[in-house]
Amino acid sequence: MEEEQVIRTDLCSSGKEKPQADQLEFGRIFTDHMFLMDFTDDKGWHDPRIVPYEPLSIDPSAMVFHYGQSVFEGMKAYRTPDEDAQLFRPQRNFKRMNHSNSRLCIPPIDEAFALKALKQLIGLEKDWIPEAEGTSLYIRPFIISTEPYLGVSPSSHYKFIIILSPVGAYYKEGINPVKIAVEHEYVRTVKGGTGEAKTGGNYAASLKAQELAEDGIAQVLWLDGVDRKYIEEVGSMNVFFKIDGKVVTPALNGSILEGVTRNSVIQLLKYWNVPVEERRLSLEEVVTAHKDGKLEEAFGAGTAAVISPISQLVRGDKHLEINQGKTGTIAKRLYDTLTGIQYGKIQDPFDWIEKVEDVQQETLKASS
Amino acid sequence: MEEEQVIRTDLCSSGKEKPQADQLEFGRIFTDHMFLMDFTDDKGWHDPRIVPYEPLSIDPSAMVFHYGQSVFEGMKAYRTPDEDAQLFRPQRNFKRMNHSNSRLCIPPIDEAFALKALKQLIGLEKDWIPEAEGTSLYIRPFIISTEPYLGVSPSSHYKFIIILSPVGAYYKEGINPVKIAVEHEYVRTVKGGTGEAKTGGNYAASLKAQELAEDGIAQVLWLDGVDRKYIEEVGSMNVFFKIDGKVVTPALNGSILEGVTRNSVIQLLKYWNVPVEERRLSLEEVVTAHKDGKLEEAFGAGTAAVISPISQLVRGDKHLEINQGKTGTIAKRLYDTLTGIQYGKIQDPFDWIEKVEDVQQETLKASS
Ligand SMILES: Cc1ncc(COP(=O)(O)O)c(C=O)c1O
Ligand SMILES: Cc1ncc(COP(=O)(O)O)c(C=O)c1O
Repeated sequence: MEEEQVIRTDLCSSGKEKPQADQLEFGRIFTDHMFLMDFTDDKGWHDPRIVPYEPLSIDPSAMVFHYGQSVFEGMKAYRTPDEDAQLFRPQRNFKRMNHSNSRLCIPPIDEAFALKALKQLIGLEKDWIPEAEGTSLYIRPFIISTEPYLGVSPSSHYKFIIILSPVGAYYKEGINPVKIAVEHEYVRTVKGGTGEAKTGGNYAASLKAQELAEDGIAQVLWLDGVDRKYIEEVGSMNVFFKIDGKVVTPALNGSILEGVTRNSVIQLLKYWNVPVEERRLSLEEVVTAHKDGKLEEAFGAGTAAVISPISQLVRGDKHLEINQGKTGTIAKRLYDTLTGIQYGKIQDPFDWIEKVEDVQQETLKASS
Repeated sequence: MEEEQVIRTDLCSSGKEKPQADQLEFGRIFTDHMFLMDFTDDKGWHDPRIVPYEPLSIDPSAMVFHYGQSVFEGMKAYRTPDEDAQLFRPQRNFKRMNHSNSRLCIPPIDEAFALKALKQLIGLEKDWIPEAEGTSLYIRPFIISTEPYLGVSPSSHYKFIIILSPVGAYYKEGINPVKIAVEHEYVRTVKGGTGEAKTGGNYAASLKAQELAEDGIAQVLWLDGVDRKYIEEVGSMNVFFKIDGKVVTPALNGSILEGVTRNSVIQLLKYWNVPVEERRLSLEEVVTAHKDGKLEEAFGAGTAAVISPISQLVRGDKHLEINQGKTGTIAKRLYDTLTGIQYGKIQDPFDWIEKVEDVQQETLKASS
């Protein structure tokens, strides 16, 4: 149904000034336009449109403010050496959004139409994709529940929105290992909860542990909420350990988010014939491997950092140093390959890249 | 600090039409005004004001839309036979809000000032407190994170808002027992999570189980997220079982919300010399008590319903009938006493009632 829909456009008269490469942070500056589409029970998803970036006008009783019924996604657009714009496996993000929608009782979106809308928006905002090494245009699709009603039940009104933010390089001075701490008190989610979904509540729940973590701790290592023994994720990344020549990552168990980067790492490792295992992994196993000199590497994997090597695992007053605090060979190879593919600098053997056509503002003006 | 602050008022020129008693639902209609106050890192909580009820203008990148950093409260204002307006233990709600704030990394509010602001708002909107038996003015204080930033970290901007909604009687035809079903697949929260806090994510997580519950099931019975054996809450109420002459309710364990009604029920039972226990309570114990003919009553307790008797506990294909499906003696006595105190019809031996002074619009206009 949505595929038939025309994306209405209402362009702003004059664009904002674009930030200098060295002023770029993460997620503080937004481009000139955004994509929006509404849902009501009677009309379904309707009125898709590209409009100037501006505040939303939302009733104070809207459900999202009270009962957190919302989902989001995160991905990036990259500028290639040929000045093309491209996306990395965006289909997976919209598929995951629908998976999240299902858990949160939010009506599904048409994934193909969402991708079409995203490409049109990116094509229009292409000049906002920064040039400098390691920079990109961060893409935030999200859905919020907007019915003005205080009953605890799924909303009958939603907004699907895509906003774009030019972001600086995650590593200013090359890929850089970080210290992480095992979290024993707080959990981000549990089996039967919402961990598999990308929904606000999981992130709200995660803030406290990070706030309490000691200085110098970049991320916390989340253990499962039932036994408090098994490793789940690190900060908001999936996590990998190289133990005795094998790369191990926690199996998807219902409380772990299925990362696009995680999936890409696993595919690359298999392609390279590096043994990789998705299975239950206890903290104890990692600690024992460290003691036996078999913990060779550890790293997080997610869209923001791509690969984030772990230099130390802090557990109470014990500090376990990994690979002498340096970036491991596998982490480095994964980082170089993934960013190489994302920025169109090396060949993409997996068909992961989705090119974005330029959109001329004039064309849109004429069509709208 | 906030106690010194003057509450600025900006009154609407003409009020909305008030609903007929028989049109009242829950949480769909809002009064003419709302209370707002802002927080920024440099100014703290500032600019407290009563303004016309209207949509909020919020940046699409505001944290509440993405990472669910929010808390809320729920209480009611009641009209007495003498046409006074009164509140039931509102101090507990603002105290709980600060408890929620702490878990969610939201800066604390000044509880006394919040109560002062609430009374001023209620005093102004007193005509909105409906008259008919069992009706009331529902009060929704909430805090949302509004910093326009996509990083996962506590927001540096917040809004504290109070909105009011006239609501109909929960029981149209007298207190009425409901069927509930044991939830085995989903959990609303877990120890180490956010269950003790009144935050959106817990409610978002709860929607799916209710959606999947079979027809005729009013609420689901939540088991703990670790062992999936111990009873936690029912829907968004605390839960009580009368077993062999003793009233038992799950002890506060970190994943149960501490209800104001729960606390009041416990105090009343003690006052009446009815044995009451707060302890771990397994589903198995309840089922066994039923088999042995010792499960005498079961009921939920919360602001919306006050007391919600349970007629049947559904567990897979087994239906356990309780007290022949009728409202129990204790449930009825609690309901009558609590509502009697709330509506000022019987004496309040606990000092639970907080009177609200009328506020003349003219006075406010003169002072602003
Ligand atoms: C909780 C969590 N885990 C893992 C990831 C990694 O997912 P992706 O590789 O798709 O970015 C994310 C998102 O970035 C996340 O929020
Ligand atoms: C999850 C949950 N449990 C219990 C309660 C009961 O709390 P109170 O009695 O304060 O309304 C509520 C709120 O109404 C709730 O949301």
